[in-house]
Amino acid sequence: MLNASICTIGDEILIGQIIDTNSSFISKELNTLGIKVKFMISISDDEDEIISNLERCINSSDIVIVTGGLGPTKDDITKAALAKLSKSESSHYDPGQYEIIRERCNRRGIELSQLNKDQALVPDSCKVLTNNHGTAPGMLFTIPKEGKASNTLLFSLPGVPYEMMGLMPKVAEKIKTEFYIENIYHKTITTFGIPESILAKQIESWENELPKEVKLAYLPNPLVGIRLRLSIYGGSRERSIQLVDSLLNDLKKILGDSIYGEDEESLESVIAAFLRKNSATLSTAESCTGGKIASLITSLSGSSDIYKGSVIAYHNDVKFDLLKVDKGLIDKYGAVSKECVIEMAKSVRELMKTDYAIATSGIAGPGGGTTEKPVGMLWIAVVGPDFCETKSVVLSGDRLRNIDRFSSEALNMLRLKLGIQLI
Amino acid sequence: MLNASICTIGDEILIGQIIDTNSSFISKELNTLGIKVKFMISISDDEDEIISNLERCINSSDIVIVTGGLGPTKDDITKAALAKLSKSESSHYDPGQYEIIRERCNRRGIELSQLNKDQALVPDSCKVLTNNHGTAPGMLFTIPKEGKASNTLLFSLPGVPYEMMGLMPKVAEKIKTEFYIENIYHKTITTFGIPESILAKQIESWENELPKEVKLAYLPNPLVGIRLRLSIYGGSRERSIQLVDSLLNDLKKILGDSIYGEDEESLESVIAAFLRKNSATLSTAESCTGGKIASLITSLSGSSDIYKGSVIAYHNDVKFDLLKVDKGLIDKYGAVSKECVIEMAKSVRELMKTDYAIATSGIAGPGGGTTEKPVGMLWIAVVGPDFCETKSVVLSGDRLRNIDRFSSEALNMLRLKLGIQLI
Repeated sequence: MLNASICTIGDEILIGQIIDTNSSFISKELNTLGIKVKFMISISDDEDEIISNLERCINSSDIVIVTGGLGPTKDDITKAALAKLSKSESSHYDPGQYEIIRERCNRRGIELSQLNKDQALVPDSCKVLTNNHGTAPGMLFTIPKEGKASNTLLFSLPGVPYEMMGLMPKVAEKIKTEFYIENIYHKTITTFGIPESILAKQIESWENELPKEVKLAYLPNPLVGIRLRLSIYGGSRERSIQLVDSLLNDLKKILGDSIYGEDEESLESVIAAFLRKNSATLSTAESCTGGKIASLITSLSGSSDIYKGSVIAYHNDVKFDLLKVDKGLIDKYGAVSKECVIEMAKSVRELMKTDYAIATSGIAGPGGGTTEKPVGMLWIAVVGPDFCETKSVVLSGDRLRNIDRFSSEALNMLRLKLGIQLI
Repeated sequence: MLNASICTIGDEILIGQIIDTNSSFISKELNTLGIKVKFMISISDDEDEIISNLERCINSSDIVIVTGGLGPTKDDITKAALAKLSKSESSHYDPGQYEIIRERCNRRGIELSQLNKDQALVPDSCKVLTNNHGTAPGMLFTIPKEGKASNTLLFSLPGVPYEMMGLMPKVAEKIKTEFYIENIYHKTITTFGIPESILAKQIESWENELPKEVKLAYLPNPLVGIRLRLSIYGGSRERSIQLVDSLLNDLKKILGDSIYGEDEESLESVIAAFLRKNSATLSTAESCTGGKIASLITSLSGSSDIYKGSVIAYHNDVKFDLLKVDKGLIDKYGAVSKECVIEMAKSVRELMKTDYAIATSGIAGPGGGTTEKPVGMLWIAVVGPDFCETKSVVLSGDRLRNIDRFSSEALNMLRLKLGIQLI
């Protein structure tokens, strides 16, 4: 099976200042193409490190994808290292990329500096993949493997995720013209509500009887729940689909409504799809989640069809003034209470004239907890045309994790109430 | 200088299903300790791959940190590979971790299964770092380097970020008792509003005159702006601080109010600090940003002191009903207009009785753009006790990137209006 390695370059990754999201995006794309990623490595902006690690990548992989170190600034040295590695003795200005750089500067009213121009300078040994979203071109080098007859395709892409993503279709096209590609089939289903060890116990006998070409992985995530991924490497796509479908049918019988979606689906996306199908709308009233639920829903393209808005009632005054929560009620029960979230949800549903509403109030921490109402405590209400239900949970985590898990708990409560599950 | 490598294990990383955030967190911690991270590698749940890559890590680093593959489920095989690698012939139940597992199951009303118990089973060759946040213990192995007299410390930690983070202080403690550690000093300053190539041009002569032991890096981020990082490896901490301070003073003269913060500071954190200091409050009215600004602010611990809330007016009805935006005005100018954001900002400021307010309305895409109002167009208003200002920008990016950049543009506009800069 065709394999690849990914190398991301940049001191900012190694000192932990940025999280490398490029490797993940690239590996997803390569997997879709049927290429197995053997390893990903992140290294510093150091010529020796770049060359020695890329040599290792080249000798162990059919395809190498490198990102980063192509910026206009002095700390970026990938291009020089690649020229050396590909034994290129001279370089030239790529006319296509040069034109894009000139145009970008023009449009922004920026003078075309030497730094800008030099972004179009490439080693003669490479083929250019024009970058329409930025100034640094993608480059393709064909490099012989040490002691072998075959070559490795090495792609160098900009480190800016948006620019790298724009170039990936061109990378895929080049790979497809150069190699015959075997299948990889992945299918993921998404569960929410069962802790990992209990889930593992529940599906133990199903897991034990999986055919040996099928690999299972558990992927927990605070926003999504636990995803279960089945992978089949090689074989025909049709057979893989058939086999996985039949295995998933058995799994659905075991896990029931805990399974809510597949592949990239999230709690918010399955809720949005349900609402769209039923021409229904949703609003939210968020205290402790502070806009996270709104933000998750509005990240979905087209969410304006089904989502009207939110009142982020972070301060109690907003609960009183905008959501008309009774002050006496908060004095008596507190803002983190069943009574408060019921009022919040009913009120926002009415104010925004929606079919459904979710309200949250809790203590994300680190401060603010008491013995009775500890950090990690959350009250949720979901209301609809003919129901009003509440739930409380106590979670353990830091502030950001609590906000994420509060949000997914609230979305999951609505999801269950709407009867959404994978059938 | 003491160096380290980080190895994250899990098929889910290599197929791009999750983004590896552990490496970034760990490298930040190691850098703070004065340990240089040479490389980070991600590999699959495959025993041969694990052993061969860990051997490489051990032979090239003083410290190796491994995460992942310690779950209770069958796909997790790191522990077996480590037992082999450290030539451990037998294993035992660690009483401390066993007790935590028993207690956790108890508290959740879950039966203590064999899978749970086996989480406490560790090779005899390791020292256990008790994991208080989960079931899989951290493990420390001391492994001789091939052909050298020295040993490598190999730490194996759970892959769940929250659990890994909880164990890092114990890792740091062990490292400090085993090694003498040299200094690494990093200082980052944060700029917003100048594109990278112009910034580079502006600071070119300053950059050319940097002492050669000082390394500069540019780190662009849609939410934060462009961060500039100065790094000094080795030398005394006092001298490094002094040198960096003097270099930064010169830089501030060049970049003026584009520099707003340092290290981990963000637009929202410097605004929150300013508001707290001035006992002032903020509210927001968000259309296209859909709660992202609220979510950024409420991610800050203690934000309830300065942030009262938001009206997410995603649907125009919410703009009319809650924010009392004049319907005629939207008919005439559209929701993405100067007139609309002024009304939104003034109205939310009044409704929530805050000193300042921000409003956003724009087109995040991918659909919804016109020639006059293209995808990427944003109107912002910021209002205060004695000002009301608006601004429009047109950005290019996909939906999520646009939402991020819209949010930071809006926050930056308030930041500048409040006169917040790094002095």
